[in-house]
Order: sequence, then structure tokens, then C-alpha cells
Amino acid sequence: MNVKMIRYIISKMMGVEGLLMLLPMMVGIIYGEHTSVYFLITAAILTAIYLLFGRKCPENMTIYAKEGLIIVATAWIFWSLAGALPFVLSKSIPSYVDAFFETVSGFTTTGSTILTEIEGLPKGILFWRSLTHWVGGMGVLVFVMVLTSLDEKNSMHLMRAEVPGPEADKLVPKARGTARILYGMYFALTAIEVVFLLAGGMNLFDAVTHAFSTAGTGGFSGYNASVAHFNSAYIDGVITVFMILFGINFNLYFFLLLKEFKSVFKNEELRAYLGIIAGATVVITCNITGGYHSLLKAFRYAVFQVASVITTTGFVTADFNKWPELSKCVLLLVMVIGASAGSTGGGIKVSRLLILVKSIRRELKTMIHPKAVNIVKVNGKKMKEETMRGVYVYFIAYILILIVSVLLISINNFDFTTSFTGVLTTLNNVGPGLNLVGPVENFAKFSDFSKIVFCVDMLIGRLEIFPFLMLFSPSLWSRKF
Amino acid sequence: MNVKMIRYIISKMMGVEGLLMLLPMMVGIIYGEHTSVYFLITAAILTAIYLLFGRKCPENMTIYAKEGLIIVATAWIFWSLAGALPFVLSKSIPSYVDAFFETVSGFTTTGSTILTEIEGLPKGILFWRSLTHWVGGMGVLVFVMVLTSLDEKNSMHLMRAEVPGPEADKLVPKARGTARILYGMYFALTAIEVVFLLAGGMNLFDAVTHAFSTAGTGGFSGYNASVAHFNSAYIDGVITVFMILFGINFNLYFFLLLKEFKSVFKNEELRAYLGIIAGATVVITCNITGGYHSLLKAFRYAVFQVASVITTTGFVTADFNKWPELSKCVLLLVMVIGASAGSTGGGIKVSRLLILVKSIRRELKTMIHPKAVNIVKVNGKKMKEETMRGVYVYFIAYILILIVSVLLISINNFDFTTSFTGVLTTLNNVGPGLNLVGPVENFAKFSDFSKIVFCVDMLIGRLEIFPFLMLFSPSLWSRKF
Repeated sequence: MNVKMIRYIISKMMGVEGLLMLLPMMVGIIYGEHTSVYFLITAAILTAIYLLFGRKCPENMTIYAKEGLIIVATAWIFWSLAGALPFVLSKSIPSYVDAFFETVSGFTTTGSTILTEIEGLPKGILFWRSLTHWVGGMGVLVFVMVLTSLDEKNSMHLMRAEVPGPEADKLVPKARGTARILYGMYFALTAIEVVFLLAGGMNLFDAVTHAFSTAGTGGFSGYNASVAHFNSAYIDGVITVFMILFGINFNLYFFLLLKEFKSVFKNEELRAYLGIIAGATVVITCNITGGYHSLLKAFRYAVFQVASVITTTGFVTADFNKWPELSKCVLLLVMVIGASAGSTGGGIKVSRLLILVKSIRRELKTMIHPKAVNIVKVNGKKMKEETMRGVYVYFIAYILILIVSVLLISINNFDFTTSFTGVLTTLNNVGPGLNLVGPVENFAKFSDFSKIVFCVDMLIGRLEIFPFLMLFSPSLWSRKF
Repeated sequence: MNVKMIRYIISKMMGVEGLLMLLPMMVGIIYGEHTSVYFLITAAILTAIYLLFGRKCPENMTIYAKEGLIIVATAWIFWSLAGALPFVLSKSIPSYVDAFFETVSGFTTTGSTILTEIEGLPKGILFWRSLTHWVGGMGVLVFVMVLTSLDEKNSMHLMRAEVPGPEADKLVPKARGTARILYGMYFALTAIEVVFLLAGGMNLFDAVTHAFSTAGTGGFSGYNASVAHFNSAYIDGVITVFMILFGINFNLYFFLLLKEFKSVFKNEELRAYLGIIAGATVVITCNITGGYHSLLKAFRYAVFQVASVITTTGFVTADFNKWPELSKCVLLLVMVIGASAGSTGGGIKVSRLLILVKSIRRELKTMIHPKAVNIVKVNGKKMKEETMRGVYVYFIAYILILIVSVLLISINNFDFTTSFTGVLTTLNNVGPGLNLVGPVENFAKFSDFSKIVFCVDMLIGRLEIFPFLMLFSPSLWSRKF
């Protein structure tokens, strides 16, 4: 294993995180907050790490897929460890475990919080919370790739490990070019959302932080009541539309720019994604309409919550924990499904669901006509058996991790629904669950051990399991290879 | 599709069920119950069906795998439809849907009940309830195979579709011989349990019915309090041991008879199965010992409940719904794992779990060393890729069915834990769940629609998904083949 190269890339990344901290520092200065100094201190520490280990590139630059996975997993852990410092130093979140939870929740775009009182926090701190969503959404390594140069082959290994979905496509021949295009479109869409939110009467700070949270499909808000705070149908509408937009595979936006409209409209994952949103919204609207005494109002809350949960954003406009059981179960279902591959959303991803469902159909066909050759197609493209196996094993690992996590969380002795949906919401990077982790609740009540389990789940969910499992694999650490 | 042959075999089976009804009839006569007449009426109807359609074998006897699956699925449905008649006619269970639920729960060896008051029922009816467990445990078609003769090739198709586990082995060259050996060992083990229970002071009726329920890993008891009724450490112990024994692959008993001790002790599934029981018992004993003020008492209840749930029997000696959350979650976990392949138990089966876990390990190894050839071995035998794929798709279908069922059950608007564990316990053929379907509760409170969903889940669980999915597959009903 090329340890030197791993250290080099990680150190470089710490330097980039240091640079990033200057943004919340400036926000703090504008608002005249003394807490800004803690961003400066953290930035200084990170710069020192970069200067010590990240300046001289090792001679042997070759890394393989396994190093790619290791780098991604460790990079996310170190970014979160360092990102928690401003929270602790400024005493906004006195406990380091809590601050780590909040930062992991930020970078993984989960949006679960341990804060019981959000509104009193300094603006710089609130800005940093939302910024972690924005950077984490598209990927911290992809972000570093945009700013610094890496060997082409190395970049591709990193990108494959970080970009969600069963297969990673390059938009242009070079990985760095792809990263820049992705971030360009990401930036543009975020900017457009800011404009729309300003038009709805939000102030600039709220508009930018909520756009960051929407773009990363994160869910942190500067208000205890989340988006319900604004109590505006217009703002609900804008955020609903943008959540749905950020849950779409970004490659499709690239096709739109190239005017390849046909390949966008024929995209199976996009159709299924929109179909699921429509279906879930109809069911929930009908189910809750009695409680709201108005079909229109029920629709407004239903579509917002469905969009928020399927894209794994986690913004809240209604306490869905009080909705009928059917609506809650539909929300849990779309939580697991998640957004599209290659978007900023989490969950299993619609494309994987398509592959899973089609596999069952194929197995039945093979049983009925054992000699017929049955292939599985997604988006008109024949899926490789290798990719299919990857999806199967991914799903199996996902369920086993879910089960083990629920067991570990149940030690807290909270009710089953709390433990189960707590794990579900963190593993899928959503934010709120049901009962004691419901929309009006938070994660402060759990033990430190549970919080660390949730952190691991959030990281496993965001990095799609394997980079993280890799760290614990004995055959990685064996000297044989 | 050879419809004539399907009709012939199903009609023959109805005749066998008619014969079977003479047993509870005789029990009723011994106890001087007038309800015995309803068994006779049902038997007469079934005999008429046999005489009409099941006597003359069609000329074209060839059936393929798909007909095998169809026969198994329809046979179980018709057996349950007819088996419900004595309950309804005798007014023991006035509603036909309820009676159907009870019969499906019996044949699939689930043991969930819609009865709120069990102890007042006629002995013949109670005997029939337990007998459905015994016959359903080893398989109703395998039972018919023991009594009547079928073409060798046809028998194998049926056996493969009905015997649980990822692969069906023949013990001797002929399917019918295998069926007879299996039922012989099954009968012998049941008889031994009866003797042990009599020795503990049970009367003959209780001993036989509880042995039937243990053998089939069913869980029906003639008492509202289940096995807790006897309040005897000896009886708890005997039933614990026999539940564990009936959860072992019956092929291993055959190896024991052949004195092939090595292949028994080296059996990976057996070791894992016993290991999981030991592990779960230790965790739960430690977890509940505070509540019972005695380590020994805690151990007695823990090991009974673990054995009852992992073998998917569902007998109860303690209201585990009141245990701490960790213990409840461990029970839910072993509920999903289930017993061994080729036993009378349900669940996913330990051997499938082994394959799933090993697949994840293989995937990680392949990521680390992409060029190495990695195979998965279970019991020292290399698994075929085809079998592996079957297990993956089985697991995926299992989870999807679980999710869809929970959605449908949530329409009742009971709490999430009730809906979720209600589906879990029926799909895995266990019996009790948590909260409103907990050990001291029953399924009477659900709507008829929900009861039918539960029935489908029980059948899907017992027949391991595919025979049942097959009925709904459009490509089966297409005229192309």
C-alpha cells in the first residue's frame, strides 16, 4: 500500500479545508462576531498540517483502487474531525462527540442535529454548518480536485469511490474536467435558488444557507422549526422544486447543456424517480387531507415532505410524526429508496432499485423458461453481471449494517420505532425519523456511544458502504500484497 | 402448461386431506364431541373432489419446474381453504377469513392466532390446529408423496419447490424414498418428545398436541398462556431442546443414522446455528437478569425464547414485549435469521445468511485484489454462481415483500412497531411479534384485508417466495410458451 501517497493527498485536503474555513470566518467578521477567531485558529492548524506533509509529492505516485477507497474513507473522517473544532472552540457545541456528530451530519448531508436550540448560535457557525452540506453534497474529494491538480489515474480512483451510484461515468475524457463541470452546474443551480428565495422575501443570509442545505440535500436550517419557520407557500414551493432538481443525476443537466434532450427524457431512472415522487405524494395527500381540512394544504405539505425525504434532504414543514401510519410508512419507504445516482442525495438510489426489481423478474423468467437467455437492461443498456453482483452485495451489506446498527442503538432502551428510524434516517443521510428522533426532536438524548454509531452510519451511507468496510477488512492489512 | 396434470395432483391432494380429517374426528369422538360431524362433512366433500378429478391420471404426465412451483403454491392455498371448513362449520371460528387465517397459520407453522379465547374450544378442533402444524412442517406435498405414488421426475420438481433452503438434496436416489426417510425420522423424533412430555406430568392430549407444534416449529398451544401455562422448568427444558432439534437440517439426522459423524460435526450451518443460539441467549440473559432477580431464571426464559424464535416456533413462556429493547431487537434479529435449511423452521435460514455474509467478504477481497479469483465455500463445498445469485435474489425479494407488506398493514393505523413486527413474524412463520401482536396479544384486531395480507406473507414465507410470486408473473400466463 502506498502510505506516502495517502498521507500526501490527505494532508493536501486538510489544507483545502483550512482555506474553506476562511468563508465562515468572513461571515462572522461581517456580523462582528468574536467567534470568528476560532475559524482562524483551526485554519492555521490545518495549514500547518498541509505545510508539513502535503507540499512535496512522493516519487511513487501510483495508487490502485484499494488506495482510492482508503483515501476517501480517511479523508471524510479527518475532514469531520477537523471541521468539528470551530464548534467546540467557540463553545457553540461544548462536547467534542456532539460537535463531531454535527460535522459528520453536515458533510454527509444528513442534517440530523444534536442541537436543542439553534437560533441563538453565531452566524459564522450557522454558515459553516450549511457550508459543510454544500461541499459534502458533491463530494469533498471532487471539491479538492477542482481546486488542486492530481494525477489523472489517481483522480479517477477517487471519483469512483466518492460519486454515488452503481457506476461512475466521466462526462469528458479527464476526471478533473468532469469535476469542474459538475461543480460549475452545481454552483449555478445553487445561485439560481438563492435568487428565487430572495424574491420570496428571505434575507441574504437565510437564502444562501438554505440554498446550500437544499443543494447538498442536507437539511440543516438556522431555525428550530426548519422551513416551517417561514410559513410561506412560495418558499415551500421553491424549496420543493429545487430539492427535486438536486436529486436528479447531474449528468442529465450536462446532456441538457449539450441539447441531447432525447437521452434526458428517455432516462429510466429519471422517470422512475419522478413517478415515485408523484405516487407517494398522491397517497400521502389523500391520507392526510382529513387532518388539514383542505386538499390543497394537504398537497403542499405532502409534496414538500416527499421531496424532502426521497432526496434525503430532511427539511420539515409539518410534524409528519403525527400523520397517519400509512403516510409515515410511505415516507420511510422513500427514505430507503433515496434519490438518483450521481445526484447529491443519499439512500439506495432509484437506479439500484430498478436493477433489484428487474433481477427478481429475471429470476422468475429463468425459472419458467430455464433455457432462455435473460438479460437486465437499464436505460436501454445491458447491465454487466459484475455491476449487478455489485448492486446485490451492496444491498445485502446495507441491510446487514442496518440490522447491526439497530441492535447497537437499542442499548439506549428507547422504543423500537425510535431506534429503527434513527438508524434508517442516518444511514440514508436524511435527517429526521419518527418518535424520539421525529421532525420536532433531535439526537441530543442519545449516549456518546450511540452518537458514534450514528456517525459511522452516516459516513457508511454517504460513501456507499465499501470504502468504509474496507478499513475494517483484515485482508487489506495483511502483508501478503 | 399441463393444466390436466396440475388438476389431477391437486385433486389427489384434496383426497389425502380428507383422510387426514378422520384423525381429529376420532379425537372428537373419544371426547364425545358432536362437532366431530363437521370433520366428516369436510372429509366427504374432499373425497368427492378426489373421486371427480383425482382418480384418472392424464395421459401426458410430463411436468416441468414451472408446473412444480404452480402445484406447490395452489396446493397450499387449497389445503388451507378446505382446512378452514371445520372451524367455520363448528362455529369455533365463525368468520371464514378468520378461519382461513388460522389454517394458513397452522399449515405454514406460523402459530399466529386470531383466537382470543383458546381454552374453551372442542378437543377435536384443538387437535386439528396442532395437526396442521405437524403436516405443514415437513411439507404437505412431501406428505402426499409418502402416501401415494407419483412419477419420479414429477416428485423431484415438487420436492425442490417445497423443501426449504437454497438447495434441495436427495438422501437416496429416489424422491419418494427420501420423503419416506424424512417422515420416518420426523415421526420418531415427535414420538420421543411425547414420551418426555408425558414424563413431565402432561396428559396425553397436551403432550401430543404440543409435540406436534414443536415438531412443525409451529407454536399453537391449547392454552391462552402458551407453554407458560405449565409453569414447569422441566417442560420448558424439554421443549427448548426439541425446538432446537427440529430446527436442524434433517439430512444431518440421516448422516447420524449412517454413522457419518464427521460430516455432522463439521457442518458449518449447524455450528453457526448453535453459535447464534448461544450468543443470543448470553446477551438476553445478561440483559434481563435484573428484571428476574436471578441469573438462572433469566437464563431459563432467555434460552426458551431464543430457541422458540430462531426455530420460528413461537411458543411463549415470558412476555418478552416487556423485556428491554436490546433483548427485543435480538429476538427480532434471530426471527429473521430463522432455522437451518431442510428443517421444519422458517426465516431466511442460517445457510443463506452464511452465503450472504461470505459474499460481502468476497466483494471486498475482489476490490482489494481485482485479479485474484475468489470463490465462496459453504460446508467446504464451492457454491455455484447460480445458487449464489438465487440466494441474492431471494433476499432482495424477501426485503421488498417485507416493505410492501408493512405499507399495506399500516393502513390499519396501528403503531409502526406493531405493523412491522406483525409482518416480520408472519413472513418468517414465527407467531408473536411486539406491541399489539406481542406474546400475550393476537391478530383478531386487524381488518379482513390485513388478515389476507398476513396469510399471503405466511404462505410466501413457508414456500420461500418464488412459487407464490410465480402465480403473479405475467410471463407464466402468456401464451407464447
